[in-house]
Formats: sequence, structure tokens, C-alpha cells
Amino acid sequence: MSAAYERLLAKLKRAHHLCTVTGLLGWDEQVNLPPDSADQRAEQMALLAELHHAAAGDPEIGALLAELEAQKCHPIGDTLSGADDVRVVVREARKDYDRVVKLPADFVSGKARLASAAYHAWAEAKAKNDFAAFAPFLEKHLALAKQEAGYLGRGDRPYDYAIDKHDPGMDAATITALFAELKTGLVPLLRAIAASPVRAKENIFKGFPIEAQREFLREVTERLGFNYRRGRIDVSLHPFCEGSGADIRMTTRFDADNPLDSLFSSIHETGHGLYEQGLPLAAQGTPLGQNAGMGVHESQSRLWENQVARSRAFWTFFEPRFREKFPEQLAAVSPQELYLAVNEVAPTLIRVDSDEVHYNLHIILRFEIERRLFSGELAVADLPAAWNALSKELLGLTPTSDKVGVLQDVHWSGGAFGYFPSYCLGNMMAAQLWFTVRARFPDLDAEFVRGDFSRLLGWLRTEIHEQGRRYEMRELVRRVTGEELTPKYLLRYLQERYAPLYLQ
Amino acid sequence: MSAAYERLLAKLKRAHHLCTVTGLLGWDEQVNLPPDSADQRAEQMALLAELHHAAAGDPEIGALLAELEAQKCHPIGDTLSGADDVRVVVREARKDYDRVVKLPADFVSGKARLASAAYHAWAEAKAKNDFAAFAPFLEKHLALAKQEAGYLGRGDRPYDYAIDKHDPGMDAATITALFAELKTGLVPLLRAIAASPVRAKENIFKGFPIEAQREFLREVTERLGFNYRRGRIDVSLHPFCEGSGADIRMTTRFDADNPLDSLFSSIHETGHGLYEQGLPLAAQGTPLGQNAGMGVHESQSRLWENQVARSRAFWTFFEPRFREKFPEQLAAVSPQELYLAVNEVAPTLIRVDSDEVHYNLHIILRFEIERRLFSGELAVADLPAAWNALSKELLGLTPTSDKVGVLQDVHWSGGAFGYFPSYCLGNMMAAQLWFTVRARFPDLDAEFVRGDFSRLLGWLRTEIHEQGRRYEMRELVRRVTGEELTPKYLLRYLQERYAPLYLQ
Repeated sequence: MSAAYERLLAKLKRAHHLCTVTGLLGWDEQVNLPPDSADQRAEQMALLAELHHAAAGDPEIGALLAELEAQKCHPIGDTLSGADDVRVVVREARKDYDRVVKLPADFVSGKARLASAAYHAWAEAKAKNDFAAFAPFLEKHLALAKQEAGYLGRGDRPYDYAIDKHDPGMDAATITALFAELKTGLVPLLRAIAASPVRAKENIFKGFPIEAQREFLREVTERLGFNYRRGRIDVSLHPFCEGSGADIRMTTRFDADNPLDSLFSSIHETGHGLYEQGLPLAAQGTPLGQNAGMGVHESQSRLWENQVARSRAFWTFFEPRFREKFPEQLAAVSPQELYLAVNEVAPTLIRVDSDEVHYNLHIILRFEIERRLFSGELAVADLPAAWNALSKELLGLTPTSDKVGVLQDVHWSGGAFGYFPSYCLGNMMAAQLWFTVRARFPDLDAEFVRGDFSRLLGWLRTEIHEQGRRYEMRELVRRVTGEELTPKYLLRYLQERYAPLYLQ
Repeated sequence: MSAAYERLLAKLKRAHHLCTVTGLLGWDEQVNLPPDSADQRAEQMALLAELHHAAAGDPEIGALLAELEAQKCHPIGDTLSGADDVRVVVREARKDYDRVVKLPADFVSGKARLASAAYHAWAEAKAKNDFAAFAPFLEKHLALAKQEAGYLGRGDRPYDYAIDKHDPGMDAATITALFAELKTGLVPLLRAIAASPVRAKENIFKGFPIEAQREFLREVTERLGFNYRRGRIDVSLHPFCEGSGADIRMTTRFDADNPLDSLFSSIHETGHGLYEQGLPLAAQGTPLGQNAGMGVHESQSRLWENQVARSRAFWTFFEPRFREKFPEQLAAVSPQELYLAVNEVAPTLIRVDSDEVHYNLHIILRFEIERRLFSGELAVADLPAAWNALSKELLGLTPTSDKVGVLQDVHWSGGAFGYFPSYCLGNMMAAQLWFTVRARFPDLDAEFVRGDFSRLLGWLRTEIHEQGRRYEMRELVRRVTGEELTPKYLLRYLQERYAPLYLQ
């Protein structure tokens, strides 16, 4: 390997370690921080952000990249298998480096200050149901997002730039087409389910002791393949997965009267955790050891949460274990009632409470709003009305207040435009992977029934996890499934899962 | 305030924040780290050490110190009350800065590498009872300790330099005199106790549920004044207290058959925690917001652990609560048996298992060994024999193996010479403070009986905690107690506590 490439890797790893320390402090803040220690943590975080910026924007990285690019990324000759690795690392490191150095320092700090102020303004506006109080912050964020795209030479297509930040290579035109096709298929399915007399029974779970929930969840996530020698699970207000390499920290939350919430959120985070644990550890800190973006990440969490953990096969294995842990609590719940509770479909105003079918419509709504905001078709002041109209059109529900409408999500307060589509792209990719792997291994269901998920995990490891950032989402999907990313498998999966339950 | 002083404070705080991040990572390593994540944590720690070294040794700090020293530390005029603060900050910052910049980088990294290798060698040597395998590492550490003293211009008195690192202003001659007087007083007391027919009953505690222990410990430490809005307590293999400012993390361990171990180790750590929580938060990161060294720190932990929590008054309040938490477990334990268990005195080979009377002899032994090692009177190879002879002389016990003798403590494997004396200096200071505060507030016992410890804490806050590093240990003791540091109060305290129990 060339000295320049070696040196580049060392520099990238250095920046990465600072990133992992920041990540750990963030995890600790959500999981452990004493109530009055927030100011001190903010000072630590600010200093680490500054140090990370310096490390990731180190001019030597720029010089090394220029040197390696001048060698046309063949510094070690085409005959060696590592040549492609070098090309990937240089290509992705260039992208990261430009994002760091092309943004002026005062722009970055100004955006961070705005995000902090906007977060508090959003929380207050939500509490008071006062969109007008939040609107100026949103205006400002929108202006900065466009400015940022300009700094990176994408001023002509700022929304594409925002999307590309979360899902490299993706753009609004592609998403528009994918979502249109998806919507066309979803609407009749949901209309049919809505007309069905079948309903999941409400309030069937009461008094599930937290400690036993914790034990069951541990058993499930371990069986799925999460390696607790390289990770852990704790409790936080909102579940998340943080960390990298050999130290993956997931969180969940517990409710004695809602064991499925904790279980499914843990399985979702386990999907994220399995992806991170499957990235090549030797390449940690370089693009080859990093995930391929939000959409791919979400495909992993959704695949385990939905395709796997809502299946008959999964519950054939786990239902007896679940009942053994909670014999009294489940005595009056029939197998079919349990399975319907796992697969409940009912429209809600709130995205995070949504079932997996409606969920996609929540995303289509947000994408549509963002697209119009960036194109100028929609003014910030008109956002609530547009939201409510789309909600009525897509979900059949009109928000009773902005609190449960346009103000429900935290994302925009941080200026995170272009983030929402990833959730739905992830759903599509998960279903597409699901059909691919089942065609490849027809015995998968039989293995799940025995509690064996290793073949699925092994396949994901090879096909997805071990690729790091080698391929952008669309190319990865093409390579693994032999087809372009498409909503048709998501639609087929939803049909196959929910038609037998609701439409017989 | 002068611009130079402002700038100095900002630079010091920056280095301090990196220190607190390192501290948090260290805490997390002991409390949370998944088993296979140690290598990754080591890389994070190494990078933070490098960044901290750069921040603490920033040449601009040197220039600012020189500028402020040239102003004779009166940059804001004698009439302002802040003048003394500036003097203290410049004086202490100079000491810290010189320690960072006068040690060559390869010396520092070489010492860190040696400490890491020596730690593993020590652990293995201890397991195999093989002192000879550890001896070369100890030789090397000794040589480096002398070299380090040389770099700091203290090559003529390397052991004094080592002591001063832990207890600023203290030296071997002073300790020799203090320990001699202490020993003279301890020996007859211990001889009398050894001859007493009174003995604490063994194995009287069985089956104390961990969760109830945790609750009781929380009640006790909160009553003593620990602020859980600015700190927390968790579980680790060895109890410790870490953190600074608004975020103090204590740890303990639980044993269902030994509730007093957990309780007293928690109270000990609470003493450390109260000190850290009492340091002036506004001065955090500057010497005025930092503790005055190991001995003073230990005086705080010992005072709460021993003088307070082994007293009749403390147990008058807490015994009913303890019994309420554990009614069955304590049914057969009489009040006198409980109080004797709290105040058990019996010689042991192991320092960390020692009662508070014998403890001082364990320290005198180690100090004597270190003193002779540094003076050259004692060769490393002759250490086990010297240890065993001193153990026989001081404790009346000859180690059956080096494992429970010279190899029992971890300290020397890290090159931490001059650390042990602090424990005993802390014991002396604690007792001296104890007599001072009781003379000042004769009702203290009556307040403890009511579960009120606020007056004692308030006094420690004003007299000790809020002083930060303003005074070195001996000057602090002189100012607060009106006397030089002396062992006579420790001896008087031990006499008053143990004579009524064992010598009636």
C-alpha cells in the first residue's frame, strides 16, 4: 500500500475516533446523565465538535486525497485486489472532506446555534400548539439548507443535496416516481383493510413485569444474532442505536401494559445494531467500515422488525417462550389475538405510532411537503394547511391540531430536511431483500420456526454489511437483488402479510 | 480582569474538559463496557490523552503564564478581591504546565507503555505468586520515577517529588515524623484490643436482597448530602468516584451476605463525591475549582466513612431504618452485635480489607518500603523479605505468600509511588477536622441522631471544598484547625471510638 494511502487511513481513523467519543457522550446523555449536568455535557460536546471538525478537515487529508486522485486511484496497480478498496476510500473520503472544508466555520456554528434555538422553539410551539412561533426558525433553516447546497456546488438542486446527505446518490425525481407507484398500490389495500370487520382487540396486555420483559427481549435479540460481547441495551426516553465497531449501544423503553412496544422497538434497534456489528471491523474509521446511508440502515432495522418479527414463523418459535415468561398475563389472549396485535393495521395521525402499512403514507406526506418547500411552491406560513390537506387525502384523517399534525416531528427543528424519505426507501429495500433471500433460501421460514436466524443474518452480512460504503443504495440494491429499487416488493409483501389476516 | 488572565482561564478550561471526557470514558469502561470492546476504548483513550497533552501543554499557556508572572500576579490591582485568586491560579497553573511540557513526549509515551505492560505483568505475577517476574518492571518504573523528578528539577529528591505529585507541599521527612508518632500511639492500642475478649460475631449477615440494599444506600447517601441531580451511583468491580463539576459518578458493588461492605464503600465514595460537588462550579477547570490533592480528598471520604458513619449517633438514626428494610435478615442480630460489626477491629494481611485502626499500619509499611527503595537502602530483589519483616513487625502477621504480601496492591504497576501515604495523611486530617468541627458545633451528635448532617457538610463546604487548590494540605489544616497536621487527633479519635467497645 502506498505511504499516502496509509497516512490517509490514519487521518480518517483519527477523525472517526473523535466521532465515536462524541457518540458515546450522546448515548450517555440519553441514558445516564444526571438532570443538572446538561450544561457541562454541552460544553464537552462543543469542544469535541470543534476537535472533530479540525481532524476531519485537516488540510493534510486534502493534500493526500489530491495526491491519490492524481494517481487515478491506482496507487498499487490494477493487479492487486486492493485497488478497488482504494478507489472507494478516496471517492468517499473526498465527499466527506469537501462537506467539512467547503462550509465556512461561521456558517457551521450559526447552523448549530439555530438548531439548538429551533429545537427549544419547536418543543414550546408543539406544547402550545403554536405553529406561527416555530415558523421563523423553519424559514431560517430552509434558507441555510439552500445556502449549504450552494457551498457544495449544488445550489441549483438544494433538495437533492439534502437527500443525498442521508442517502448518497438518491434524488427527488427518483423518489417522486417510487412514491407515486407505492401510493397507487397502497391506497386500495388500505381501503380494503379499513372496510374489513377484522380488528385487533384493544387493551389485551396488562401488568407485564419489566424485568421479565427485559429477559424476553434479551433472548429474542440474542437469537436474532446481536452480539452482546460487542454491545449492550439500556433504557432511554426514545429508543435509538448508537456506536460503531466493537461497541454498539442500543436503547429501549418499557411499559408494563405494552410489551410489544418495547419488544418491537428493540428488534428494530437490533436491526440497526446487527448492521453496525457486521461492518468490517478492520476497516473501522474508513468508508469501507461505514454504513451506506440512512435508507440502507433503515432497510436492516425494518427487515428484522417487520418482515421477520411480524411473521408466523417467528411467532411459531417465540409464542411459547413469550407465554412461558408471562403465563398469567397471556392466559386470556388467544394465539390469533396475539398475532393480530402484532400485525394491527389502523390509521393514526402520528407517524411514530403508525403500523407498517400506513407508515409509508406518513413519509409520502412529508416528502411531498419538503419537495414543495424547496421548490418554492409552498410557503412556510401555508405549511399547516398543506399538511392537513395531505393528511386527509392520504390517511383519511385531518389533524385536530398542529401538535398532532405539522409540529409532531423533531426533524425539521434540527434542519434535517431530506431525512424522512429514507424511512420509506428503507421499507422498500427491506421487502426487496426479503423476496431475494427467500428465493435464494426457500427453507428460511422453517429455520425461523426452529429459532434459527443465522442464515438470513449470514446473507445480510455478506451482501450488505461487509460492503460498507462501497456502493450507493441504488447500486447495492441492483447488485444484491438483480433489479432496480422498486416499491413492488413492498406492496407484494404487505399484500401477502395483511390480506390473509384482514381480507378473508 | 486582564485579557491575558481571561485567555488563560479559557485555555485551562479547554484542557480540563478533555480531562473530564477521558474521565467519563474511564467510568464507562468500568461500568458499561461490553467485554470485547476494550481495544476500541484503548484507542479512544490514547487519542484523548494526546489531545489533552496538546491542550494542557499549549505554548500559549506558557506565554500567558510568563506575562502574568511578570505582572507579579497583580494584573487587576491589589484593591480588588480577585487578586488572590489570580495569584493562586497562576501559581498552580504554572505547576501543572511545567509537569506537562518539561517531560519529553517519548518519555511520557514510554512510561504509559511500561505502565500497561507492568499492569499485566503484575496481574500475572500475583496470580502465579511470582514476584521475580514482576521485579524488572518495578525496577524500570523506579528508574523512570527518578528520571521524571530530574526533568522537573527535583532529581536530588525524587521521592519528595513523587509525594508532592499526590499531596502538594508534602515531603518524606514530614511524613516520617508524623508516621513515627502515629505508630507509637497505635501499637499499644492495638495490643490492648488484641488482648480483649470482645470480638465481633462472624457471618451474622445473610441474604440481603440487592435491590433493598440499593434503596437503603441511596437513602443514606442522600441524607449525607450527595446531590443526585448532579451525580449518580452505579456498580463496578472496585468502587470508585469519578467526574467533576456538575457530573459526579460514584460506584459500589453488592454482596447479598455483606451489606456493610457496599454501604461503607458507598459512604466512602460519597465523601469523595461531596468534596467534588462542593468545589466552586463557576471556577471549574481552573485550579480554584479543583481539589487540593489526594490527602485532602481522602480526609473527606474517611471523615464520612469513619468518624460519621461508624458513630453511635449515625446508627441511632439509621439502625431503625436498616432494620425496617431488612426485618428478617436482622431479626437475630442484636443492636450491640450490629454496632460491633460496624466497628470490627482485627488484623488482616490485606490493606483493602483492613479496619480503620490497622489500616494506618498498612500504609506505614508501604511508605517505609518506598522510602528505602528511593534512597537505595533497599534493592527491588529484596522487597519481599523486607515487606514480610515489616508486616510481622507492624501487623503481627507474616504473609503466607507474596500474593497476599508485596504483590497485593495495583499501585506500583502503574508507577504510582508516593500515593500510599495520602491514605494515612487523609485519616489524620479527617480526625483533626472532626475534633475541630465538634468543638465548634457541640450539638453535631444530636443532629446526627435526628438524621441531619447538613451542618457538618456546610462547614466542610466553606472550610475545605470551596477553597479548591488555594492552599496546600498543610496550610489548609493550619488555617482550618489552628494547628499543624498531627496524628494526635487520629489517635484520640481511635481511642475514644474503640476503647469503650473493646477495653471496658
